[in-house]
Amino acid sequence: MPLAHPNPLIARLSPPPIPSVLAWAGDYDGAKGPLIDLSQAVPGYPAHPEMLRFLGEAAASPAMTSYGAIEGEEVLRKAYATHVSAVYGASVSAANIHITSGCNQAFMCSTIALAKAGETMALTNPFYFNHETTLSMLGIGRVLVDCDAAKGFLPSLVSAEEALLSGARGLAVVSPNNPTGAVYPPALLRELFQLCQKYGAWLILDETYRDFLPTDAGAPHDLLSIEGWEETLILLYSFSKSFCIPGHRLGAITAGPRIVGEITKIMDNMQICAPRAAQVAVAAALPILAEWRVANRLEISRRADALKAVMAATDGWSIAAVGAYFAFIRHPYGNTPSAEVAERLAKDAGVICIPGSYFGEGQENYLRLAFANADVGVISQLRGRLR
Amino acid sequence: MPLAHPNPLIARLSPPPIPSVLAWAGDYDGAKGPLIDLSQAVPGYPAHPEMLRFLGEAAASPAMTSYGAIEGEEVLRKAYATHVSAVYGASVSAANIHITSGCNQAFMCSTIALAKAGETMALTNPFYFNHETTLSMLGIGRVLVDCDAAKGFLPSLVSAEEALLSGARGLAVVSPNNPTGAVYPPALLRELFQLCQKYGAWLILDETYRDFLPTDAGAPHDLLSIEGWEETLILLYSFSKSFCIPGHRLGAITAGPRIVGEITKIMDNMQICAPRAAQVAVAAALPILAEWRVANRLEISRRADALKAVMAATDGWSIAAVGAYFAFIRHPYGNTPSAEVAERLAKDAGVICIPGSYFGEGQENYLRLAFANADVGVISQLRGRLR
Ligand SMILES: Cc1ncc(COP(=O)(O)O)c(C=O)c1O
Ligand SMILES: Cc1ncc(COP(=O)(O)O)c(C=O)c1O
Repeated sequence: MPLAHPNPLIARLSPPPIPSVLAWAGDYDGAKGPLIDLSQAVPGYPAHPEMLRFLGEAAASPAMTSYGAIEGEEVLRKAYATHVSAVYGASVSAANIHITSGCNQAFMCSTIALAKAGETMALTNPFYFNHETTLSMLGIGRVLVDCDAAKGFLPSLVSAEEALLSGARGLAVVSPNNPTGAVYPPALLRELFQLCQKYGAWLILDETYRDFLPTDAGAPHDLLSIEGWEETLILLYSFSKSFCIPGHRLGAITAGPRIVGEITKIMDNMQICAPRAAQVAVAAALPILAEWRVANRLEISRRADALKAVMAATDGWSIAAVGAYFAFIRHPYGNTPSAEVAERLAKDAGVICIPGSYFGEGQENYLRLAFANADVGVISQLRGRLR
Repeated sequence: MPLAHPNPLIARLSPPPIPSVLAWAGDYDGAKGPLIDLSQAVPGYPAHPEMLRFLGEAAASPAMTSYGAIEGEEVLRKAYATHVSAVYGASVSAANIHITSGCNQAFMCSTIALAKAGETMALTNPFYFNHETTLSMLGIGRVLVDCDAAKGFLPSLVSAEEALLSGARGLAVVSPNNPTGAVYPPALLRELFQLCQKYGAWLILDETYRDFLPTDAGAPHDLLSIEGWEETLILLYSFSKSFCIPGHRLGAITAGPRIVGEITKIMDNMQICAPRAAQVAVAAALPILAEWRVANRLEISRRADALKAVMAATDGWSIAAVGAYFAFIRHPYGNTPSAEVAERLAKDAGVICIPGSYFGEGQENYLRLAFANADVGVISQLRGRLR
């Protein structure tokens, strides 16, 4: 009898990276103090008590038990549209919003909406690993756009144009970036937008870490004020980090109504609708937790400063890029593969971080630190651990 | 400038069927009494108060805010494995279970785990429409397996073997069936399993309506006692109908550890993990709501009886198949397309149901009624409405 086998596109994927990295820490003997987990980006402070109260109330409500609108709860689509309009000084309506179960799902839906197996999408190198594995498992090819370490890991326009010339259906970028922390300047994002427009391609901009940008820097970009943005731009967002509720799985897509309509067809198959109770809870929390979120953003920028101080004082280590939630760190171990460095850091020093090689080609000299996970006191301990 | 366009595999899909069917009802003037909605399968009674209490408590808990295990909460995987073991008299463990955000997602994950674009999967005709659109949007071809109306819409083994011979990577069946209500006998399921095994293909069995089978009929099948079932069988389940909580989006896959491992890779990209709070709540509810679920099952079988009585007494209408949640009804309007009949029923008689044509080829004589949505009193009113 022939043996049934799984889809080779899936079989060839490595197991999910976060659990495998956490596994290394199992061998740490605690000699240097408690584990410091800088792997998965998870807010290092709890959700707001009001957020928890809203979540509990909505989940206990009989009204939330039935199937909801595929596009998302009207109340959240409206609240989020108002929020996006305020952030960008733009005019976005509920019809531009599709709610998803987190931003990974937002990316997967957007990708399926744009490209089919055999076509290609452009990603930066380094990339956010789930973007790459999502394309890979769907049989969508990837073209990589170079980012110059010397220029703070911003993508090269020449390389982006080459990718689009080669026929990529879209370009996906992340700003503030995961893994590097790089914040793409508004002018660069506009140039990437125009390049995509020139080639009839889509620009997907993942803004999971948008709320951790400095408050005084103005809007992250002005793409939503470009006439006809709906025919080129898809913005992705996550409520996980900003509201400290990743376990409730909520994200949002901002796009033209035509793309929202295509994504509705995909979501109907993928999960009918995002879980409803959390949507209603976040809609209530969005306007009233604004100050709390600003306070978190300031706290996280203090953590970035603490990390910069540690790195400046630790021989051989340096910061290649840093911003919002992440730092991309150059380790001092020359040709040692980054996975080996990360494994040894976890096992010997109790510091869990992610090898640069997990994020693309030629990233062996780097480690990604999700420094926002740890408070200033813990970050300061890194000095002793890295030596 | 060239215009960016969406993926043609998505653009060619019709908008999701349920909202389009509900739209027809907007034109009903109420003359014959309140709307009777027999379209989407939604339990016509509320969730248990204890279920709501568990949901509220878990959602308000700080412990549920962080990312969870991709495979699902251990407590639910264990509780569900125990339940499955009891239902089938088999020995299934947590390692066999992957939790998903509903059974549509369970199907999409399973499909991606087995087949890539350009390959084919076999579905019965008629099929559950989201199975068909899921394949379609992923560029996976479908081969249809005939079901004979005269034999209660059970799939033909000859036709199933042809589909597998043509190279289908798997066969997906639904029992109790959506749309027809047909309950596949254990012996038939075993024959389908053996056919799949013979051709090195997978059998996906969607058991969303399992809990609405008659209590006295024994286990739905004995496939889990076949040595090596893990290399052929994937069972799908939904907590939506049985616990009356579709808005919380929970489903489960039962499969071999190898397939569970592949699905973990897919879920990591698709949404990292299913929402956590509802998982913990359902784990608590599963053992204590057993009697309540039996009572619901009895209530729903009374509804089936009421529908049979209505149909026997209504000239020209007849039941082609009925079971668990659905009836597949033969309408008396000869060559009128089923969508036209359903539209007129909605607009003129205030009865919302789904046209047979939405479920496959050659189904124009039928309408699907999700009779479990309505109580016996409402079902009795159908007689006046159908005339
Ligand atoms: C760039 C980026 N996009 C998406 C996600 C996933 O977010 P969510 O929890 O909303 O799925 C993450 C989480 O780490 C991320 O870093
Ligand atoms: C056969 C079948 N499978 C799956 C589903 C989806 O269930 P869930 O709500 O768990 O996604 C349904 C819902 O109608 C169904 O009828």
